[in-house]
Amino acid sequence: MIYSNSLIYIEVHDSEIPWLKIFTHVQHKEFSECSRNERMMIFDVLDLIEREMLTYFKPEKINIASFGNMLPQVHWHIMARFTNDSYFPEPMWGVKQRSGEFKVAPMEPFIEKLKAVLTSRLAAS
Amino acid sequence: MIYSNSLIYIEVHDSEIPWLKIFTHVQHKEFSECSRNERMMIFDVLDLIEREMLTYFKPEKINIASFGNMLPQVHWHIMARFTNDSYFPEPMWGVKQRSGEFKVAPMEPFIEKLKAVLTSRLAAS
Repeated sequence: MIYSNSLIYIEVHDSEIPWLKIFTHVQHKEFSECSRNERMMIFDVLDLIEREMLTYFKPEKINIASFGNMLPQVHWHIMARFTNDSYFPEPMWGVKQRSGEFKVAPMEPFIEKLKAVLTSRLAAS
Repeated sequence: MIYSNSLIYIEVHDSEIPWLKIFTHVQHKEFSECSRNERMMIFDVLDLIEREMLTYFKPEKINIASFGNMLPQVHWHIMARFTNDSYFPEPMWGVKQRSGEFKVAPMEPFIEKLKAVLTSRLAAS
């Protein structure tokens, strides 16, 4: 867990690409079951993470998804995608396109910057 | 196209499952490039579609995603998933799990109801 406030928390997903997951503290199955505050918080967090990922990693594209088929608890994925990552242009759940070592800028400085942005920008934090 | 307002339009994606796609009229590559009004409209539309899908189709789970790796224009997918659809619990972009004819309630009454809900509920429509 890299960040938590009264409504949501953020985890790093172990992957070759920069990939974060946002969970609500209160467990809901469907997004529409979340309170308006929870939904707005998730949208704000997705927006801030996307902007920070674009600035820091300079990816080809940001991907966002909420499935929850195996873990029926609201959680959102946000991923920075690159033309030479193992799955591009497929989603990360798609058919692997290539092998080899994909390298990306280190996560630690990104996480530190993101924590600072989230702490300063989110009203409910 | 089943619905359009000043900011977004909605298309049906051809699939065995109920699957809609939401596009902004103004083309943006990343979601954070959208105006706040466009983003809020998409969130409101996703919320309304999810609630109508849950009521009408009674699916196992709603899936939501925004990739745009092949078509670098902001568009969101929203899908009603069922335990016996061809890919469950994988995302629709994942590994096919089973074959056979998957049947779901007809789309037409759902589309008609959704159009009425969107028209009455969305301020900017």
